[in-house]
Amino acid sequence: MFDLGELEKQIEDRIRTKQYAELRDLLSPLEAADIAALCEDLPEERIPIVFRLLPKELAAEVFVELDSDQQELLIRGFSNTELKEVLDELYLDDTVDIVEEMPAGVVKRILQHSDPEMRKGINEILKYPEDSAGSIMTTEFVDLQTDMTVEAALKRIRRTGLDKETINVCYCLDEGRHLLGVLTIRSLLLAEDDDVIADIMDRHFISVQTLDDQEEVARALSRYDFLALPVVDKEDRLVGIVTVDDAIDVLQEETTEDIEKMAAILPSDKPYLKTGIPETFRSRIPWLLLLMVSATFTGQIIAGFESALASTAILTAYIPMLMDTGGNCGSQASVSVIRGISLNEIEFSDLGRVIWKEVRVALACGAALAVCNFAKLMVVDRMIFHNPSVTVGVATVICLTMVCTVLCAKLVGCTLPMLAKRVGFDPAVMASPFITTIVDAISLLIYFRIATVVLGI
Amino acid sequence: MFDLGELEKQIEDRIRTKQYAELRDLLSPLEAADIAALCEDLPEERIPIVFRLLPKELAAEVFVELDSDQQELLIRGFSNTELKEVLDELYLDDTVDIVEEMPAGVVKRILQHSDPEMRKGINEILKYPEDSAGSIMTTEFVDLQTDMTVEAALKRIRRTGLDKETINVCYCLDEGRHLLGVLTIRSLLLAEDDDVIADIMDRHFISVQTLDDQEEVARALSRYDFLALPVVDKEDRLVGIVTVDDAIDVLQEETTEDIEKMAAILPSDKPYLKTGIPETFRSRIPWLLLLMVSATFTGQIIAGFESALASTAILTAYIPMLMDTGGNCGSQASVSVIRGISLNEIEFSDLGRVIWKEVRVALACGAALAVCNFAKLMVVDRMIFHNPSVTVGVATVICLTMVCTVLCAKLVGCTLPMLAKRVGFDPAVMASPFITTIVDAISLLIYFRIATVVLGI
Repeated sequence: MFDLGELEKQIEDRIRTKQYAELRDLLSPLEAADIAALCEDLPEERIPIVFRLLPKELAAEVFVELDSDQQELLIRGFSNTELKEVLDELYLDDTVDIVEEMPAGVVKRILQHSDPEMRKGINEILKYPEDSAGSIMTTEFVDLQTDMTVEAALKRIRRTGLDKETINVCYCLDEGRHLLGVLTIRSLLLAEDDDVIADIMDRHFISVQTLDDQEEVARALSRYDFLALPVVDKEDRLVGIVTVDDAIDVLQEETTEDIEKMAAILPSDKPYLKTGIPETFRSRIPWLLLLMVSATFTGQIIAGFESALASTAILTAYIPMLMDTGGNCGSQASVSVIRGISLNEIEFSDLGRVIWKEVRVALACGAALAVCNFAKLMVVDRMIFHNPSVTVGVATVICLTMVCTVLCAKLVGCTLPMLAKRVGFDPAVMASPFITTIVDAISLLIYFRIATVVLGI
Repeated sequence: MFDLGELEKQIEDRIRTKQYAELRDLLSPLEAADIAALCEDLPEERIPIVFRLLPKELAAEVFVELDSDQQELLIRGFSNTELKEVLDELYLDDTVDIVEEMPAGVVKRILQHSDPEMRKGINEILKYPEDSAGSIMTTEFVDLQTDMTVEAALKRIRRTGLDKETINVCYCLDEGRHLLGVLTIRSLLLAEDDDVIADIMDRHFISVQTLDDQEEVARALSRYDFLALPVVDKEDRLVGIVTVDDAIDVLQEETTEDIEKMAAILPSDKPYLKTGIPETFRSRIPWLLLLMVSATFTGQIIAGFESALASTAILTAYIPMLMDTGGNCGSQASVSVIRGISLNEIEFSDLGRVIWKEVRVALACGAALAVCNFAKLMVVDRMIFHNPSVTVGVATVICLTMVCTVLCAKLVGCTLPMLAKRVGFDPAVMASPFITTIVDAISLLIYFRIATVVLGI
């Protein structure tokens, strides 16, 4: 945890003065993620200089952490030997991530310079659909036979472990590569040398299928506190594992997507500052247009009550306040429910409990808001601002509308996401902007209806 | 990944018919998190029955996963021997989490029945402030001396590893317990038996301080793909480690808090369905009240233009549409920026880039919305609905306002969260509801100003 800004200056100094040995000493103690962050701020032509100074293994780790633009730039500059060296150091799942982002020409070159086994693995993983467990797994795991002793298993791990993504969890297979049990390196080390794997492995393991959603897989890893989760095909053969570091990335991405959807943005998988203007425009305009058009209804409602508004013009002044409060209440309820759904805390069968809870909260909130508002209308607007049109009748209309609006807003806010989920839509889309549009129309209808009755207009 | 509902029925059946052996067989293959989830839906008096059937180690794991209410219930029902047995199986950090949630009487009983070392550890961790690295760490890590051989280190791990939270990362200390290097179990296993720890350990490690924010710690674990992160005190002595499973929990909690703040809810750390009505009320009413009062300004603005509105009543009908669109644009910008800040993608020094980006996106969005809106006003409102008051002049006012509102909304939306962060406020609070209130007032002012000029009212 240190300040990268200071380092950046030192690095640019060293490059300018061509003090490469010093530069190397400066870089090699750093973590790969930090070097990659430094590279992002360097001028493009200096990245290859930095990259070539790094020890091979670190260079490969940095390569994985770079932006795809910078990866492409480096690959285009690599000689065939350099490319092969980097590829040899990469783990399969990272290579697949890179291949997915590269243009066809670069992909071809990568595949040409990967060894045959790697090439087979890449093609294997590429065939799984995006966002599936298969697409984020790696095939580089430790497999053990059930009749091995602990001693033999440890020997096997020490011999083959270097190329595995993790040795912390090992997988016990039969001859047909069916998964029979899992074994952590901890249980293995804490067992006696002559124990047999079949006796100490955990036969009650959780596994996922290649086509399961990556978010489900990540949630399972976090729910069970696992370091890796086995991925099996339809015949229950082990084809790969998903490790916890990739699961964290998936959870972050999916949360960002949820948040974007809640704010009426089409999700994008690039960081904010790396997204171009046309792309940002395209991710924002569809919802804006749709919601603008739906807001037409509110206009129609107001136009329909034009004569009532003309006779009691003061009512217009409180429309924004009522609409905003309704919108806020609705988004509080919808966002709470959406987050609960995505954390698996709320299921459709809880609909009754959720509604009952929101009704009581809504009545409490509505009453509190109405009382404060009535006091404010009478004291501030009528007495301090001397506005004689704020009569007790008008204040009553506004406060009754407040209670009804809050109740409707909370009901709509908690119900729509759950119904959306039920019919297979994404609940996150039913968040603030969408609910606000609906609640706006409802609150106006309530407002004018109550005004007509109470004020007799 | 299976359906818990089906299992639940079977379990209740077995309890009712007192088939305890069968019940035990049903439960013991399950993961602790699943058993805890099942317990949550059981009637209170049945939880101790289920709990006592479980093998000791699994029972302790389930205990950790239960709600604090249920934990308290169980502890109150435990004999002293039972309590001691469960406590002996718990990891220190889990015990601390439980202690933090229990009333004083129960805490006293827990401390009385913990062994002296555990008691010391609990008191140690309890003294760190909430949300600090110290408060989520565990002191049960593997420590090695730098002059050990790999063989000796492995022996030590096999002897003492059972009580450690993780053996996947080991920490190399000097006599003063200063951290000199870290070593993964993988490097240890892949080294030669007679290698010396000092030669193979990684001296360039990342560590955090006890008082660092837990969110920073969790982000560092995820950034560097670590399985654990060492926590040192002010004198650089190793006092504990934070493991990746706890980091995932922290990331989830902090994200939920961010989302709640963005929806104008005071964050709570309980799941939605477990929060009582008064608590939910208290977390929602403050922002609702504040925002309701701030919405008064919009009312004042409208009241100020009452005569203009009276002469061109049609303008009122488009107020909600303009306000909603402004609010949506503002929340798109603010939510993008808030998420970027919390993922460390955006810093204050990027303010210029962010504003320049939002200006261009705003002009594009504003233009697109204005054009569509103009067409809609002329075709739908004027020609189809035969509303003669929608003149070209009125449509021009509305569409010009649209462009200006979108621009202001995006600017306010992207700037406020960054300024908030700069002055030490939480950027998440500057999300949709807050920005909507500001943008509403701005858009009304723009609307009436443009109307006055263009329509000469």
